[in-house]
Amino acid sequence: MRLYQYRPREGDIPRLAVSSGGGHVVDSERAWTHVTGTEPGRTTRMLHHWMRALIEEGPRWWSEVADVARQASAIPEAHVDLGDVEVLAPLVPDALRDFLTFEDHVQRGARRRDGEVPAYWYEAPVYYKGNPRTVIGPDTECPWPPYTQRLDFELELALVVGVRGRDLTADEASAHIFGFTIFDDFSARDVQVREMSAWLGPAKGKDFANALGPCIVTADEVGAEPDLEMVCRVNGEEWGRARSSQMHWSWAEIVAHSSRGEDIHPGDVYGSGTPGGCCGLDLDRELSPGDVVELEIERIGVLCNTIGPRPDSS
Amino acid sequence: MRLYQYRPREGDIPRLAVSSGGGHVVDSERAWTHVTGTEPGRTTRMLHHWMRALIEEGPRWWSEVADVARQASAIPEAHVDLGDVEVLAPLVPDALRDFLTFEDHVQRGARRRDGEVPAYWYEAPVYYKGNPRTVIGPDTECPWPPYTQRLDFELELALVVGVRGRDLTADEASAHIFGFTIFDDFSARDVQVREMSAWLGPAKGKDFANALGPCIVTADEVGAEPDLEMVCRVNGEEWGRARSSQMHWSWAEIVAHSSRGEDIHPGDVYGSGTPGGCCGLDLDRELSPGDVVELEIERIGVLCNTIGPRPDSS
Repeated sequence: MRLYQYRPREGDIPRLAVSSGGGHVVDSERAWTHVTGTEPGRTTRMLHHWMRALIEEGPRWWSEVADVARQASAIPEAHVDLGDVEVLAPLVPDALRDFLTFEDHVQRGARRRDGEVPAYWYEAPVYYKGNPRTVIGPDTECPWPPYTQRLDFELELALVVGVRGRDLTADEASAHIFGFTIFDDFSARDVQVREMSAWLGPAKGKDFANALGPCIVTADEVGAEPDLEMVCRVNGEEWGRARSSQMHWSWAEIVAHSSRGEDIHPGDVYGSGTPGGCCGLDLDRELSPGDVVELEIERIGVLCNTIGPRPDSS
Repeated sequence: MRLYQYRPREGDIPRLAVSSGGGHVVDSERAWTHVTGTEPGRTTRMLHHWMRALIEEGPRWWSEVADVARQASAIPEAHVDLGDVEVLAPLVPDALRDFLTFEDHVQRGARRRDGEVPAYWYEAPVYYKGNPRTVIGPDTECPWPPYTQRLDFELELALVVGVRGRDLTADEASAHIFGFTIFDDFSARDVQVREMSAWLGPAKGKDFANALGPCIVTADEVGAEPDLEMVCRVNGEEWGRARSSQMHWSWAEIVAHSSRGEDIHPGDVYGSGTPGGCCGLDLDRELSPGDVVELEIERIGVLCNTIGPRPDSS
């Protein structure tokens, strides 16, 4: 199924919308009420309004939501026209890890450093921890941070963790994948390069904004290792294209690595890193205020954000 | 004042204890009930049981707690003997940033790399984001992660953010400092060095455990830039000693930097990084299972953790 978090009108509390088995997009709570013939209680209401609650509730609830949405596809009162509502980030995770899994992007980074791909990159899926506090949704403005002259984006596929686990093997890890969304890893390149020269980070180079959306497609629909076409466009012009199957590390290996010595948690988000040539840095191009960045991934949709104005100070 | 989070007996919900103006340590809720002559309502109860709630409530409540604790110091029924209870981490933050502020430690790192201190280190306080999920308290065991052969500690002073803010100047930032605690930044050195060779992190090298405690001393008691003696001992033997005034960056500069382009949040924790010679790495020494690591910082106390056994697999 595909899961959206949306707001019918400004000021409303967020709600979930679902499309299951290729059917119409329906409002989760209205679909459930129509199909089951009952009004949800307080706890059940939360599961219809908050993606993190839905994910934490576990596989039995996910199946019920999918079944109900499939049945409600025939009930016009349950339909949601996504063009008429504000589609939000599908979730604001508690934790965001961003990996570096596309060899072509790492090779380009190594060339910029006049070096080679680090040997350890082939030994384990490396990551940094992102800032989940600055998650933004589709069709919103990415704020231009006051401290950068060089704003950039990165096209990424992102995994959403399903069931809690620890010290998982790669074989076990696939069952802990809830689904996938699109991640625009906005980057302040001038600052990022400088702070990474001092060994740590990225930090301020990434912490100001992370876009997620427009929906989560579940792993039961696309598989745990989906091969999806990924395209990025700026102001309608295609800048890059790749396939998610070009990742050097599998999602199962990423989840297994992440789970070593610590729990992984429902609703956590792990980015794939960007494929080579799917960000301005790799192409020696920069964003300007007002630019429209569209990231499209097959079977998920398009995540579109506009670049905000430069603050007066910069 | 000094603030503790503690559990009277196994299975009890955590409570807060306070010592104000050099007085006895008192239970926050019992002190409040005795001094005000009223039973707390639901919301007020939470403020007596949960450090994050206390910090989020803001300066007026902090003053009230300090006043009440000072008065209750004379009321034996409100006293808490910290030796009789389980002292917990003073808080589990939503976000943990660890800076690198002691030049001597950076210089030693540069020598190990046969290089120089990065120029950018002198331009801005660099940090990486830690894993708040694996916070442990005093007198607990640091788990030995299944993937390391070389476990280490770092002696750090840590700041706790008070009031929310954004794009603060250093002059403004001091007013956003709630207080300070001790942070043991446990490190899997073999993994940390390898993952940082691949540009990102530290990640698995740090994510398995972070100890905080035993209390938070507020900035109104020690100042926003306290000069405190810091000592680390392993199995009773002193390994290193420093003063917090040796930090290259002030706490106000750290908070101001962190707030650029994003909000800072009540209860977030920022580590100072370790002074040179206050971790095994700088001294070419390693920890072993069963080692007792004591970090002592003047006016805060001693944070003591024991190193857990190696898992069978390592």
